[in-house]
Formats: sequence, structure tokens, C-alpha cells
Amino acid sequence: MRKQYRQAVNALLAAERIVLAGHVNPDGDTLGCVLAMAHVLRRLGKDVTAISTDGVPDNLRWLPGAELIVRGTERRDFDLAVACDAGALERVGRSVIAAIQSAPQLLNIDHHIPDGVFGDILIVDSAAAATAELIWQLILKLSARSNKALADKDVAVCLMTGLITDTGSFRFMNVTPNTFLLAARLQRLGALPAPIAELVFENRSCASVKLLGRALDSLKLSHDGRVAWSQITAQDFDDLNATDSETEGIVNHVRSIQGVDVGILFREVPGQKVRISLRARDGADVNRIANAFGGGGHRLAAGCSVTPPLKGVEEAVVAEALRQLDARG
Amino acid sequence: MRKQYRQAVNALLAAERIVLAGHVNPDGDTLGCVLAMAHVLRRLGKDVTAISTDGVPDNLRWLPGAELIVRGTERRDFDLAVACDAGALERVGRSVIAAIQSAPQLLNIDHHIPDGVFGDILIVDSAAAATAELIWQLILKLSARSNKALADKDVAVCLMTGLITDTGSFRFMNVTPNTFLLAARLQRLGALPAPIAELVFENRSCASVKLLGRALDSLKLSHDGRVAWSQITAQDFDDLNATDSETEGIVNHVRSIQGVDVGILFREVPGQKVRISLRARDGADVNRIANAFGGGGHRLAAGCSVTPPLKGVEEAVVAEALRQLDARG
Repeated sequence: MRKQYRQAVNALLAAERIVLAGHVNPDGDTLGCVLAMAHVLRRLGKDVTAISTDGVPDNLRWLPGAELIVRGTERRDFDLAVACDAGALERVGRSVIAAIQSAPQLLNIDHHIPDGVFGDILIVDSAAAATAELIWQLILKLSARSNKALADKDVAVCLMTGLITDTGSFRFMNVTPNTFLLAARLQRLGALPAPIAELVFENRSCASVKLLGRALDSLKLSHDGRVAWSQITAQDFDDLNATDSETEGIVNHVRSIQGVDVGILFREVPGQKVRISLRARDGADVNRIANAFGGGGHRLAAGCSVTPPLKGVEEAVVAEALRQLDARG
Repeated sequence: MRKQYRQAVNALLAAERIVLAGHVNPDGDTLGCVLAMAHVLRRLGKDVTAISTDGVPDNLRWLPGAELIVRGTERRDFDLAVACDAGALERVGRSVIAAIQSAPQLLNIDHHIPDGVFGDILIVDSAAAATAELIWQLILKLSARSNKALADKDVAVCLMTGLITDTGSFRFMNVTPNTFLLAARLQRLGALPAPIAELVFENRSCASVKLLGRALDSLKLSHDGRVAWSQITAQDFDDLNATDSETEGIVNHVRSIQGVDVGILFREVPGQKVRISLRARDGADVNRIANAFGGGGHRLAAGCSVTPPLKGVEEAVVAEALRQLDARG
């Protein structure tokens, strides 16, 4: 990877007009990385265009430099393009691809397992918990080469936001000792984790909190206590004027009950098939349950969509979950 | 503090029979610290008695060495007693005090702001996020003096559990760069944070998850959207056969809504006054609201108990919250 970092530093220092892009439906890691790079490159005197095709969501408006973000550009005079945390070229957003590809060189910096490699210079490392870890390394190397301490509090807040977002506040399996070491350095630069975690995680819509209430109020447990499930009906969505995206995270509550190996959330999304999210504890395998209904995912998290009615779907999926747990013993 | 650590190391190495005690209603920090010390002292050939007067809760049974924990002892032949994370002498549990005080020396190691100082050797530092941080320093010094690497994976898992418990997985204001540095070291010793966080936080009773559902389903917002409140009725407690301790954490969900400055949870605990928990975002001050009803706490978290009926209490407390927010502007 050393060679790639050297190439990236050379390209960034040589370029004058640089376009940065994050991914669609931006989160704290992609925006934190775009903004950290924007701060650093502006300090180096570069002409920087920072793009997030879907803008900045409400819960990330406070990111230092968020006002620099644009949703697109007509410019085609860039010397260098940088894709941060994108996963795939298309994920910078359709209307942004042309601007990105107009630059003679594209630096792709990402921690996703690549879904089709793209870019001329690749800093891609799926062992990093967040792309913020790779941006930090790049900033260190840029600082050394330019003889300037480029990382300040703003940069640290942006990268801490990336770490906290992509690790669920240091709770996910992707956390490594390097993640913690970087968090220590960022906090020393002034990025307090507590207010960032609060801004990232505790800024929910009223409807999403009420949906959680409805779902958990409907909670059922199998006789052996190993499967728990909740439902959100079309009526619930209607009453609360809520969308399916506001059900995110609810299934984790269902799975969090003592003794439960499989948690399931059924959503009767108006005008669609019944959407089903499944979560397992280590030991169970919900991918196989989802497969039985034409869906997929991985062992600990999977999903599928099944033709209504809700009641029949619930019975079938719960029965399949119990069958698979029994088969496993 | 150096002198205190030196005294503690001397006392621990000189002693043969050592009694360790955590606090009542044990959590991951107190038990993690007691067990980390038990592992280390046994490795040094000591006769160790590890006490948790309330035993080990279900969600911490997996702690390495949990089977060593006893609820009390009739022995009075100890050379040294060590209180871990206790806060005050009484908090080791009434029936344990005599055993602790029978030892000629008492080492008090704690990160609580002392509520009445006790002990002969004090390692008390409220800047530590968890007592686990202080135990780690002590183990480092014991290792250096005894020329043995005393910290292994079991010790690391115990102390990581302390860190994760007392920082809400690195989300609370008490986290410092040292907390993160220690987490990195513990993970290097084999303590993975993700499964520990899952075991600590995602092991809830079915009743507590359903109570969360009932509470959030009852959620109300003030007209200006700055105050949100939920209730749990006597009927809810009764239906779910639940206790007030199972409502812990619910008020944080109420406060997590966008734009909400004050979140309030009202609990109509059968046979008691109405219990009220208040949480603020930075900027609001719920201590003042609680004070108006004879309660207290601090700016971001406070509580009070008020004579029923529930409906009248709700109206009065919400009105007071709105009045205080208006006064602040």
C-alpha cells in the first residue's frame, strides 16, 4: 500500500483543481472523509469542489465545512478526482460520474470490498473499519511531504464522525486496535466522541421513534423463546405518516432479548410486498431462512420480501426459522 | 498518585490472603475489575476471595472467572481487602463490610467521586472513565515489580467489559484519549469489543423491550417540538409483570428525537409516587425542572417523584419544562 499512498500524495500535490465525491445516501463516513480532505486540500491552496449528490442529511449538517458541499457541478476542468468511501463508481451518483471521469486521474479511497474496481490510484483496504482510517493515513503522509501539520480539530471531528458512524460507536466486528488508536489521536486534536455520537445516533424522526414503539408493542416470542418477531402494519405507516426507511434499527431491538437467537421484523409497506428483516446472534444463520423465501444476506443479517397477506407471511417465516433452529439443534 | 500505586503494589505483593469486593447491583466495571484482579493475584500465588454480594447478573455470567465469585464469606483471616469501584464502603453490601474491615489494610480503587473517603490506600481518580483504567495501571505496575506479564486475554476481556459498560461503548462524556489507548491494548491482548458490547447491551428481558414499546407508543410532543414525554402506566407494569428497573434507558429514546431539548419518562409504579426521569440535550437544564418538584440530579440527567395522579403530574411537569425552556429562550 505504500506505493499507492506515495502515488496519491504526488497526485494531490501536483493537482490544482480537485473534485471530491462521496456516495449516494451519504453517511458520516463518506461525508466526514470528503470534508476532511476538503479542509486539508484547501489549506494546501487547492481549488476544491466537494460533491455529495444527495446533499447533507439533517443529522450531519453540523459537520465542520458542511456548507462547502454541493450536489453536482458543470465543471469539467479538474486535474484530479477523488472518490471517498464510494464502493463502486456508480455510487457517486449518476449525474456526478461525468465530472469525476472528466479528470485525467481518479483516486479511489475506500474500505468497502470492491464491487468492480475503478480508479487510477487505489487505496482500498477492507480491513479498515471506516474509510476515515485510510484518509487519516493519507493526511499523515501529505503532512510529512508538505511539511505542514494539516490535521486540525475540524479534520479530527470529520474523521471521528466517520469512525463512530461505521463502527456503531466502536461496537461492530470491524473495530481493530488501529481504530481505537486513531480515536485517541482524533480526540487529542479536539474531537470529543460523546457529542458526535449523540448527533449521529440521537437525532431521530418522531415517526421512527413511534414506529419503534408500535413494533415492540406487537412483539411475540416463540414457545422456546429462541425466535422473537414484531410487525409494522400498513395502518401503522399510515397513522404515523412514516416511510420504510424509518424502521431502520428496529429489528436489532427485537433480537436484543435474552435467549433470542433470531429476531424478525415484518413490515407491511403500503402497496408493496411484505418486507422482512432478520437478525441472528452468533450461532444462528438467518441467511438460510431468507434464502427459503428468495432473499439473502449473510449469517447474522438477511432480508426478503414476500407476497401478502401479513399474517400468512409471519406464520411461514417464523415456522421456517424454528425449523432451521431445530435442525441445527 | 505514584506513591499510592507503589503502596498498593507493596501491599498486594506482601499479602497472602486477599479479599476483593465489588458493589451492590454489580455492573460490568465492578465485576470486570474484581475478576481481573482475581486472575492476576491468583497468578501471583495468592489466596483470593472474590465477593459480589448480589452475585453475577445473567448478562455477565460469561465473564472469564465468573464462577470464582461468591456472595459473601465467614472468613476473617485476610491480610488485605480491596474494594473495586465501590463508591462508598456501604456499597460493598452490608454483610460484606465485616469481612472487608477484618483485614488490617483496605485498598480502595475507584473512579467515583468519593461519597465519604474510606480505605488505607486510595487509588481514586474521577478522571478515569472506568475503574478498569485504574486497575490496568495497577496491573502494569504489579507486572513490572514481579517481572511477570500478568495481563492475559482473560484479564483483557474483564477490563474491556468495564470500559464498554461505563462508557456506553465509548459514547459518554467520560471517554478520554487514555480510554481509547487502553481499549487498543486490551484488544491486542485478545479482547474483541463487538461480542462484549453485544453481551453487555443486547441481553434484555422481554418485559423491558415491551415496556420500551408501550412507552414509545404513548409518546407526545409539545407544540414547539422541544419537549417529548412518554408514560408507563400501572396497567403496563402489571400486564408485563415488569419492575421499574426494566425501564432503564427508555428516557434516552424519548430524548433522541430531532429538535427535542427535554425528554421525560413518567412511570406509575404500583403503590408508589409517580417516578419521573428527565434528560436534556446540551443547552437545556433538567436539574432545575427536577428541583421544582423536590428532585435533583445534574444538567443533562435528573429525576423526581411526585404524588399521583399520573395525568396531573404529567401536565405540571411538562408545563414546568416548557416554562424553563421559554425563560432560557
